[in-house]
Amino acid sequence: MDKSFIIDEDRKRRLGFDEVIYGASKSVTLLLDILKEYTDKKENVLVTKLQEDKAKVLLETYKASFYDAESGIFILTELETSAEGSPKVGIVSAGSSDIGVANEAFYTLEYMGVKSRVIHDVGVAGLHRLLDKIEVLKTFDILIIVAGFEGALPTVVGGLLPQPIIAVPTSVGYGTAKGGETALHAMLSSCANGITVVNIDNGYGAAMSAFRMVKLLERK
Amino acid sequence: MDKSFIIDEDRKRRLGFDEVIYGASKSVTLLLDILKEYTDKKENVLVTKLQEDKAKVLLETYKASFYDAESGIFILTELETSAEGSPKVGIVSAGSSDIGVANEAFYTLEYMGVKSRVIHDVGVAGLHRLLDKIEVLKTFDILIIVAGFEGALPTVVGGLLPQPIIAVPTSVGYGTAKGGETALHAMLSSCANGITVVNIDNGYGAAMSAFRMVKLLERK
Amino acid sequence: MDKSFIIDEDRKRRLGFDEVIYGASKSVTLLLDILKEYTDKKENVLVTKLQEDKAKVLLETYKASFYDAESGIFILTELETSAEGSPKVGIVSAGSSDIGVANEAFYTLEYMGVKSRVIHDVGVAGLHRLLDKIEVLKTFDILIIVAGFEGALPTVVGGLLPQPIIAVPTSVGYGTAKGGETALHAMLSSCANGITVVNIDNGYGAAMSAFRMVKLLERK
Amino acid sequence: MDKSFIIDEDRKRRLGFDEVIYGASKSVTLLLDILKEYTDKKENVLVTKLQEDKAKVLLETYKASFYDAESGIFILTELETSAEGSPKVGIVSAGSSDIGVANEAFYTLEYMGVKSRVIHDVGVAGLHRLLDKIEVLKTFDILIIVAGFEGALPTVVGGLLPQPIIAVPTSVGYGTAKGGETALHAMLSSCANGITVVNIDNGYGAAMSAFRMVKLLERK
Amino acid sequence: MDKSFIIDEDRKRRLGFDEVIYGASKSVTLLLDILKEYTDKKENVLVTKLQEDKAKVLLETYKASFYDAESGIFILTELETSAEGSPKVGIVSAGSSDIGVANEAFYTLEYMGVKSRVIHDVGVAGLHRLLDKIEVLKTFDILIIVAGFEGALPTVVGGLLPQPIIAVPTSVGYGTAKGGETALHAMLSSCANGITVVNIDNGYGAAMSAFRMVKLLERK
Amino acid sequence: MDKSFIIDEDRKRRLGFDEVIYGASKSVTLLLDILKEYTDKKENVLVTKLQEDKAKVLLETYKASFYDAESGIFILTELETSAEGSPKVGIVSAGSSDIGVANEAFYTLEYMGVKSRVIHDVGVAGLHRLLDKIEVLKTFDILIIVAGFEGALPTVVGGLLPQPIIAVPTSVGYGTAKGGETALHAMLSSCANGITVVNIDNGYGAAMSAFRMVKLLERK
Amino acid sequence: MDKSFIIDEDRKRRLGFDEVIYGASKSVTLLLDILKEYTDKKENVLVTKLQEDKAKVLLETYKASFYDAESGIFILTELETSAEGSPKVGIVSAGSSDIGVANEAFYTLEYMGVKSRVIHDVGVAGLHRLLDKIEVLKTFDILIIVAGFEGALPTVVGGLLPQPIIAVPTSVGYGTAKGGETALHAMLSSCANGITVVNIDNGYGAAMSAFRMVKLLERK
Amino acid sequence: MDKSFIIDEDRKRRLGFDEVIYGASKSVTLLLDILKEYTDKKENVLVTKLQEDKAKVLLETYKASFYDAESGIFILTELETSAEGSPKVGIVSAGSSDIGVANEAFYTLEYMGVKSRVIHDVGVAGLHRLLDKIEVLKTFDILIIVAGFEGALPTVVGGLLPQPIIAVPTSVGYGTAKGGETALHAMLSSCANGITVVNIDNGYGAAMSAFRMVKLLERK
Repeated sequence: MDKSFIIDEDRKRRLGFDEVIYGASKSVTLLLDILKEYTDKKENVLVTKLQEDKAKVLLETYKASFYDAESGIFILTELETSAEGSPKVGIVSAGSSDIGVANEAFYTLEYMGVKSRVIHDVGVAGLHRLLDKIEVLKTFDILIIVAGFEGALPTVVGGLLPQPIIAVPTSVGYGTAKGGETALHAMLSSCANGITVVNIDNGYGAAMSAFRMVKLLERK
Repeated sequence: MDKSFIIDEDRKRRLGFDEVIYGASKSVTLLLDILKEYTDKKENVLVTKLQEDKAKVLLETYKASFYDAESGIFILTELETSAEGSPKVGIVSAGSSDIGVANEAFYTLEYMGVKSRVIHDVGVAGLHRLLDKIEVLKTFDILIIVAGFEGALPTVVGGLLPQPIIAVPTSVGYGTAKGGETALHAMLSSCANGITVVNIDNGYGAAMSAFRMVKLLERK
Repeated sequence: MDKSFIIDEDRKRRLGFDEVIYGASKSVTLLLDILKEYTDKKENVLVTKLQEDKAKVLLETYKASFYDAESGIFILTELETSAEGSPKVGIVSAGSSDIGVANEAFYTLEYMGVKSRVIHDVGVAGLHRLLDKIEVLKTFDILIIVAGFEGALPTVVGGLLPQPIIAVPTSVGYGTAKGGETALHAMLSSCANGITVVNIDNGYGAAMSAFRMVKLLERK
Repeated sequence: MDKSFIIDEDRKRRLGFDEVIYGASKSVTLLLDILKEYTDKKENVLVTKLQEDKAKVLLETYKASFYDAESGIFILTELETSAEGSPKVGIVSAGSSDIGVANEAFYTLEYMGVKSRVIHDVGVAGLHRLLDKIEVLKTFDILIIVAGFEGALPTVVGGLLPQPIIAVPTSVGYGTAKGGETALHAMLSSCANGITVVNIDNGYGAAMSAFRMVKLLERK
Repeated sequence: MDKSFIIDEDRKRRLGFDEVIYGASKSVTLLLDILKEYTDKKENVLVTKLQEDKAKVLLETYKASFYDAESGIFILTELETSAEGSPKVGIVSAGSSDIGVANEAFYTLEYMGVKSRVIHDVGVAGLHRLLDKIEVLKTFDILIIVAGFEGALPTVVGGLLPQPIIAVPTSVGYGTAKGGETALHAMLSSCANGITVVNIDNGYGAAMSAFRMVKLLERK
Repeated sequence: MDKSFIIDEDRKRRLGFDEVIYGASKSVTLLLDILKEYTDKKENVLVTKLQEDKAKVLLETYKASFYDAESGIFILTELETSAEGSPKVGIVSAGSSDIGVANEAFYTLEYMGVKSRVIHDVGVAGLHRLLDKIEVLKTFDILIIVAGFEGALPTVVGGLLPQPIIAVPTSVGYGTAKGGETALHAMLSSCANGITVVNIDNGYGAAMSAFRMVKLLERK
Repeated sequence: MDKSFIIDEDRKRRLGFDEVIYGASKSVTLLLDILKEYTDKKENVLVTKLQEDKAKVLLETYKASFYDAESGIFILTELETSAEGSPKVGIVSAGSSDIGVANEAFYTLEYMGVKSRVIHDVGVAGLHRLLDKIEVLKTFDILIIVAGFEGALPTVVGGLLPQPIIAVPTSVGYGTAKGGETALHAMLSSCANGITVVNIDNGYGAAMSAFRMVKLLERK
Repeated sequence: MDKSFIIDEDRKRRLGFDEVIYGASKSVTLLLDILKEYTDKKENVLVTKLQEDKAKVLLETYKASFYDAESGIFILTELETSAEGSPKVGIVSAGSSDIGVANEAFYTLEYMGVKSRVIHDVGVAGLHRLLDKIEVLKTFDILIIVAGFEGALPTVVGGLLPQPIIAVPTSVGYGTAKGGETALHAMLSSCANGITVVNIDNGYGAAMSAFRMVKLLERK
């Protein structure tokens, strides 16, 4: 058999960012092989959705690496502090249970060199918590809205604010929440105009979508 | 074969209301047979979800009957005006497309002798339309909230107001709205506390649930 | 990042009850942070669907707290005995496997200061067990009906009794019971009139819906 | 291409009954070809789920044939009256909307020479209608129970009576009734013991299952 | 709270068999309470789908009890050998992975006093294995056909043999087998005539359905 | 806007066959535009799943074109008779209702210059009809097996014969047949070894898969 | 009853665009009422997913209005030509059957005053058609990618180009395409980084999302 | 009870290959019984999807046996090196997470005596990785394409290369990837012509399908 992975070395040239490793389905052995290739090339790399037991092994090998247990984000070498200035992306969560997905977006943006801020627990069942934050939310270029259960938050925010909005359904909830499917479908069916959506629990994808917009702004 | 229907004549004694006819799956012939039995007994009857072509035939036979094409509600004899006084039930719709389901709740309550009021088009994508109505909504004993698409309205209302809330998902929407299934699941997964839900497009059921509460209030 | 939760301190004023913590998706660390805020303010709080291993840690920290393993209900300080007098809410379960959900409704009502009574194991496959209890069931203002498998009990009760009925599907069953989805859909499709439904296993939500009705009765 | 159908002439020897034609997906041309083969052999044949417009053409060609529009049952030559004596199979429907499926079972049994009786509209939301019929139901060897919406009737009957019970879910209902899927799943998940189920709207299949039992009784 | 279970003591009079305990969702404590009630009354009882760890505790308390780990069948006192004579029910499995479900049917029938025989591993992908057994299969009054994956066996048997056939889909398989749902739907959609179906993995239900037929034969 | 279609003129060089037009979702205007481009280039083209009303318009414009109403296959210029010799592909249908899908495979192969033969109505509920054809089926290089309802035919054929087998589920059936989904899942879950599957009703795709194999044989 | 709609007159101030009417579920009478309110205020309005028969009536009343039958877009007064300069948004369709959804995006952007260009029929089954267009695609600020069937186009484009990408699944396809659900899920699961998705057939939503980005660029 | 398995000893004669054991649902005891029968007959056998803990026991008993933990493939006696010459089958994976399924196909082909080669990690989100391999891919007779997430790879390959293509969806992914269902449906809905598909994660089935084609080539 051939080698079991091929690094897409050209990606940065094409897209402006490097390849990222999806950690959930890879064995520790395979991950160590891949990480070695990056360290040999003296490059950093981001791993997503890495389980805690596997992270433990990697952390032993790479002492300087970073791991956030809530989100499963692993970064090969140190996480540099993001650029100075006011945050460009606001990450808004509906409930404190959504912390893992919000963190995934936050650390991915940090890794990509984009400053963001997380505002937690402003779900619409206690509307004033959201209304209290509207002025803050207006200051961001782009909004990432994270919500589980019925996923109503993006609709309300989308009706109040004009920025690009990336909605992230989370798997928080039970029964008819269907592991995030209901929030996903609710966000896609939103009556608010021009909201876009990423996969369930995909904080990483939301961050990358925001990154594409940030780069567009920079090119202008 | 035996006769193809049995009227539950005892229902009023047990439950305080008469049997109702589900019109959608019955042939005109069968409906005429059933209605005849009611006219023979000089009793009124409510038919739900009656298609327009079938209603036309019934209206020709029973000139004094009432039919609302938006909701498919048919009432054998005239619809008496509801009781005097302020409305007990507020029926709130998220969008003007939900009019059929709101009407089904409204006419059922009228038929049951309960006064209600419909407030249309206060969906949360334009939040101020709802906030403008909060003081009015506080005046009702019971709220019926009708919404399609992502069905977010009951969550927001449920976080603002303390009354019993009956949420009715509607089949309005397309794609991931899934014929009302997304609104249904969103309402059942609502972060707001103590909201109850009825079947998709079931304005009739919401009205009957409100009727059970109204009767409880009267018994006290 | 900002603090990861915001307590909705205004909820009692708006709705007549305090915020409740959904325990299933929160880490112990986060739960301890939240509980501390409540103890600092000398307030009680209800946590739902708390797993046993996490409860154990909380119980060590808060010796006076209450935990019911069947339902996962956790209450920060002691559970006061509910008000005197006859119970207002009847909680009826179809099978003894539904005990966890019935308990969730029961303890939530206790916490809210509403007296209720649980009547177990009166599923309709042994109809006389239900018929034997009809006179007792008539004495309650509101009925919460808990059932898994095919979820037929609310239909039969709804055809016999006139009170408001809140049906709770449970995830008890296997195969086509589909983790409670079949009971849910059956209850929503019920031929009985005016039954409302809450999420699968949502004994808490049923209790809160009953609480809204009890408060309405008190306001009258 | 070869001829587009092959008659299973050996079926009667193996199974005790002849082949039956599923009418719904066949063109009139194909049906006429098949029926001609039966008339050439001077044999009768049963066609199921035949749409009315196609039936019309067949009825013009075969004047002596029988067609029931409610069920879509078509029989090539006359339908002989069933055997004398008391009916062996009781066909019980939950609502008058289930008439088409009940008829499909009834006419199939007639065609097979088995006497049955249809008892309509004894759904459990008006329980006394069923309890009034229990003594009659005890007289049948086999029960076919037909129900749409939440499909609760077989559970209640199965808890009261000891005969073999064949449950037939129907597509009557809307929203969460899901075209009969909810009744199907409810019947399969029934808490009553030893109930078996056939496909949605499959009155024909229920009749054939009853026929297999009747033949077993005759062989003994 | 009231006692958490009610034994249906009248069931035997109505149906000819006693109540059975569904073991999967009950805690050991609850099961011990229930079993005690049966031992107090000196009666035997059948428990289904009992997990191995819970069975272990019960077996320590009730040394004379019977437990089959493949099926999860537990019987309070000894399992008497079934009646003499040739077996009435043939239980046919498509693959050796279906052994648990086949055993559930077998031991339930033993418990009910009905003699049966299990014939394993005659799936239609190796058709001759089935054809070799046809003469044996003809000797049974009733056939229970157990199959996972695509569930094709009942169709082939149903086209070859005239007896009542009860098909049991199993959860054996992966991917599109969907935990037994595909076999279930395939059996319900079978082109063979008069096959009935029970819930996924419901060997117990199939046995009880066979028991109803055996009792009918005995009454004649 | 740019022109609304781009013909893939290079496809034949790459794949050995020309582009094919999916007719179902295109307006007559668009189809006429596309066909004109082919006639201008004096090339033939195949259109699949063309509805009868749209075909009628095309047939009026292109008198020499071919249309089969059962399958919806439309061919721009005449359909040449396929190559001499014995047929390479056997197309086997389970029931005569599957004729449209079988025809789609047949005419596609004719158009591609591959000789095939259709053998109808050998479903496994009448097993001898299939066993009678086994010797004929052995003569083909490749088998296309077309079946609706429970889709059991490919499993049985796959257990008896060694050739490449392409299974085509059809949407024939009702209720749990779920528009072909059950046959699809059953075929994918087949216990027979090495069966491959195409989309529901995709006779065209099965033919193209056979064509790829035929070309491979020719290259050798 | 109150008036059946409320115009959100404040939306432009909040979001930078006016309310839009969802036409599919509204009766002609309701639509005429709403349009009258806009003409009274001398304002233009956009209606989406308007069926042809209803559009016909509106077009008779409002002679100067615009209607595109492929997409169902209706605009009350004339559609002004979009701003000068090169197009900002590239709308890319995978197949010519996707024309309706592409048009919905195009006309919405025109109405919002944003210049776009549609590039049709570059699906990845003929990869060179896409590769031929890459240089053109690089010239747009934002890409809207429209695809039905398996919806693979956004993944390939997302791996080649760095701009913000809004993927629109369409309901084009049959069988396992599941009315657009497969394309939707494929796009949400895309291995390409930072792609966002809107509802099935929601060309309007994609355009509004692009509009939010265009406005962000203008504010900078 | 009869013995719980029957070896299909005739399969090799009919199909050219021996029976294979599905390991996932069988207990170690049953597996040991079956393997003993094979060793008694001095025959080799292949076991698929065998879990690691069960494999461990078998490996202790059969020291010479082969086990691959990634795929769960177990082979009773040694795995002989495959035939000399260039590989006939190319197994192409979209990502390195698909290694288990690719290995299942590879080892099955080795066991069947067919030489193949695995080419990893050429998913279309980095298109050049695939385009770099096209010349290699042209050298194989048959292609097995393995992909999870959105499963787009077979469409792109199928549009570029003319060989028979067997697509294998894998369960790699999360959220809307739905355990491989999305990749499965995407592959079945592929716009590329003549692609066939096997069950999710069914590397074994893909190998057997390739084997059927290889045998056909040998017979010619």
